[in-house]
Amino acid sequence: MTEVKLHGTWPSPFSYRVIWALALKGISYEYIEEDLSNKSPLLLQYNPVHKKIPVLVHAGKPISESMIILQYIDETWPENPLLPSDPLQRAAARFWIKFIEDKSLVILGVSDILEGEEYKEKARKASLEVLKTVEEQALGDKKFFGGDEINMVDLAYGFLARWLPVVEEVVEVKILEPNTVPRLYAWAENFRQAAVIRDNLPDHDEMVSRLKFRREQRLQIGRKS
Amino acid sequence: MTEVKLHGTWPSPFSYRVIWALALKGISYEYIEEDLSNKSPLLLQYNPVHKKIPVLVHAGKPISESMIILQYIDETWPENPLLPSDPLQRAAARFWIKFIEDKSLVILGVSDILEGEEYKEKARKASLEVLKTVEEQALGDKKFFGGDEINMVDLAYGFLARWLPVVEEVVEVKILEPNTVPRLYAWAENFRQAAVIRDNLPDHDEMVSRLKFRREQRLQIGRKS
Repeated sequence: MTEVKLHGTWPSPFSYRVIWALALKGISYEYIEEDLSNKSPLLLQYNPVHKKIPVLVHAGKPISESMIILQYIDETWPENPLLPSDPLQRAAARFWIKFIEDKSLVILGVSDILEGEEYKEKARKASLEVLKTVEEQALGDKKFFGGDEINMVDLAYGFLARWLPVVEEVVEVKILEPNTVPRLYAWAENFRQAAVIRDNLPDHDEMVSRLKFRREQRLQIGRKS
Repeated sequence: MTEVKLHGTWPSPFSYRVIWALALKGISYEYIEEDLSNKSPLLLQYNPVHKKIPVLVHAGKPISESMIILQYIDETWPENPLLPSDPLQRAAARFWIKFIEDKSLVILGVSDILEGEEYKEKARKASLEVLKTVEEQALGDKKFFGGDEINMVDLAYGFLARWLPVVEEVVEVKILEPNTVPRLYAWAENFRQAAVIRDNLPDHDEMVSRLKFRREQRLQIGRKS
């Protein structure tokens, strides 16, 4: 098999989208951890426009942007498809992927430490509105967004299953709860338990420690400025 | 042929992306002009999440979001493809489409009338930086982003060829100029002159009148608030 490499950063949810897609396709690859405070010359060469991870390198050719990488993977290795074959269903999948791409900052923005309690409550409400829309209009009563199997939409929403609970714990706020969005809550549990995902998830407690450390750093910079 | 309808608004560049794609594919359709201050029940039914145009309706099924509609069109009517067939080239096309989707507000933001001259100069510089990146890294010496023929990337960037010059005239600012981005300037001219585009472009002078009117309205609301 032609060489596949992934430049990523622990525990970026954008890296994990690619890790999950490669795992679902059964593609072996070399993982290269990037230090974002000291980016490698290769990363700068591979993604000169954004200088960001993840970058997938296939046969020496780089591909950037997590969701574009997922489409590349799906088109290059068609077995275990990540998108439906019907154009209308593909359009619906892309609609919900774009939806969460546009809204992810709304949801993860709740962790902004420099803002006060009033901001936090507003951010919580805004995030919950997004999740309710997703539950009602996209997920419905299905096990996964893709139906019985995980597909590209599930991977796009994967950060809700591990990153959001970490934020909720550190920030002390409740958003994705059984009493507000029960079906999406069940989805998150199903997603974490799926074999390929379970074997490729960053550790919750390590992520909590790291986020606490990052928030403390940010707070100190905020106080100085 | 199964019935195709397009709900759009004059002169939304997002509507025109779809109009151009349908024209390039030679698909006949019914165009339904939506009044965004009084949206039709059909539009609200077809796009309940965003309640926005454009919406393409094919055999009674709605598809929303201009770039998702373009992919649907390309997958449903494969003749005259709008994306390259090679996965790596498709990824590159999607990269540059996402780039301008993310940056279009930077460029069109220059028309914000409530901000002063300092803002305008900053917005002009930020826009020019975006255009220089596009010229150097995406367009290069090609006639179109797609090479000799217009493809999906050209349609995504199409607003630079008509909407941006209207903004430049009304706001009295120069961004897309032969002395700063000569190759992109030539692309804009080539794009406007391509037969299918030329026959499906909103009128420059009408757009200038409308933008002047809108800015005057906005200014009056701004003064009151």
